[in-house]
Amino acid sequence: MDKLEMLYEGKAKKVYKTSDPDKYIVDYKDDATAFNGLKKGTITGKGVINNRVTNHLMKLLEGHGIPTHFISQLSQRETLVKKVGILPLEVIVRNVAAGSLAKRLGLEEGTRMKKTVLEFCYKCDALDDPMVNRYHILAMEYADEEQLDKICEYSLKINDILSQYLKDVGIELIDFKLEYGVTDDGELVLADEISPDTCRFWDIKTHEKLDKDRFRRDMGGVEDAYKEILFRLMGEA
Amino acid sequence: MDKLEMLYEGKAKKVYKTSDPDKYIVDYKDDATAFNGLKKGTITGKGVINNRVTNHLMKLLEGHGIPTHFISQLSQRETLVKKVGILPLEVIVRNVAAGSLAKRLGLEEGTRMKKTVLEFCYKCDALDDPMVNRYHILAMEYADEEQLDKICEYSLKINDILSQYLKDVGIELIDFKLEYGVTDDGELVLADEISPDTCRFWDIKTHEKLDKDRFRRDMGGVEDAYKEILFRLMGEA
Repeated sequence: MDKLEMLYEGKAKKVYKTSDPDKYIVDYKDDATAFNGLKKGTITGKGVINNRVTNHLMKLLEGHGIPTHFISQLSQRETLVKKVGILPLEVIVRNVAAGSLAKRLGLEEGTRMKKTVLEFCYKCDALDDPMVNRYHILAMEYADEEQLDKICEYSLKINDILSQYLKDVGIELIDFKLEYGVTDDGELVLADEISPDTCRFWDIKTHEKLDKDRFRRDMGGVEDAYKEILFRLMGEA
Repeated sequence: MDKLEMLYEGKAKKVYKTSDPDKYIVDYKDDATAFNGLKKGTITGKGVINNRVTNHLMKLLEGHGIPTHFISQLSQRETLVKKVGILPLEVIVRNVAAGSLAKRLGLEEGTRMKKTVLEFCYKCDALDDPMVNRYHILAMEYADEEQLDKICEYSLKINDILSQYLKDVGIELIDFKLEYGVTDDGELVLADEISPDTCRFWDIKTHEKLDKDRFRRDMGGVEDAYKEILFRLMGEA
């Protein structure tokens, strides 16, 4: 399957058309950005790791009944996925307060939430991805009610599956961001990526951060953290 | 009923204990603030108007089956209310985009929402009243699930009642803020106020603003707008 016209270039990935109108190719880059693009950099090898980690976890989720856009890995950086229209929502799943949630609610980073928290942001760089709730989503038609109910159900189930899986390799899943898409047939599927770019992974014993916060916060050891995640999940350096 | 110890002094009201442990007295002030206290001023006569308008609308809502904290008006500025513990939530009901919603979602002020939007903010000056959703509220125990469901049900019903009532006197109800409290018996009741301080009222034909936005935005004619609301609702200047 060959890459044809590039449809989209985002902060961390490019998406290409293919000769099959129902399939796209995603190509992961090493570019890293944070704070809505205000901070830019490169994390060497990130594209390869995020591609492999994402596909590994998408396959795990498919095995547990979550529909995803994943079809097959084509190369170290490239993956064949179902063509979907991405819903303009970021879904954030939070088990432990960190980042913007800790700041906004005045919680110490590391405070476990009494219940899992779902947050939604409207994907719009010009508006800085504003937080929205169920009522905004339905009034603005970012998703319909059936889609939104499924998004909530899937997101909580994904959290259960990933939290348990990661715990077994010594990682605490603090929070993560999901995006969903709709196929031409109208099926809602998990899309985008699940990687150290989009999750907060803490070592379960030391609480060492093994994710993009090392880049955001200039903590050093960024590449090693990404490699460590790949190693823990797939046993490879 | 005499005022005893002052329990609380807010931006626009004082609350006093009375000789009856189940009843408080609210005393409305002319002080006006905006932008979480950054802007301060006085709106002469506001306390009287807000007291009378609030009581008028609370009685209307009681007549439609909404439980409120209202007992009886004691004077032009003072009202006897049930003692409640106020839940730390502001509930914002929006029919038309204005203020922070218009800004956040990039909508022109005046755009009618396709569905009524409810928003929740955690009442906390130090955190600048952050927006929260259902998941935050339950995880942080700002309210329990039964309370939250009732808050949503009541708020939408209040919107229907007030929108229709105000339409009949030539006012469009753009948005408004509600607060709820819980009595010692565990009953959830509408509390706080419903006034030009807490609602956006637009003249239905001219779209002239008849509310606190005239103060927030230095539009002039603030006192006259408050008087106009009193006149339209109660036929008195």
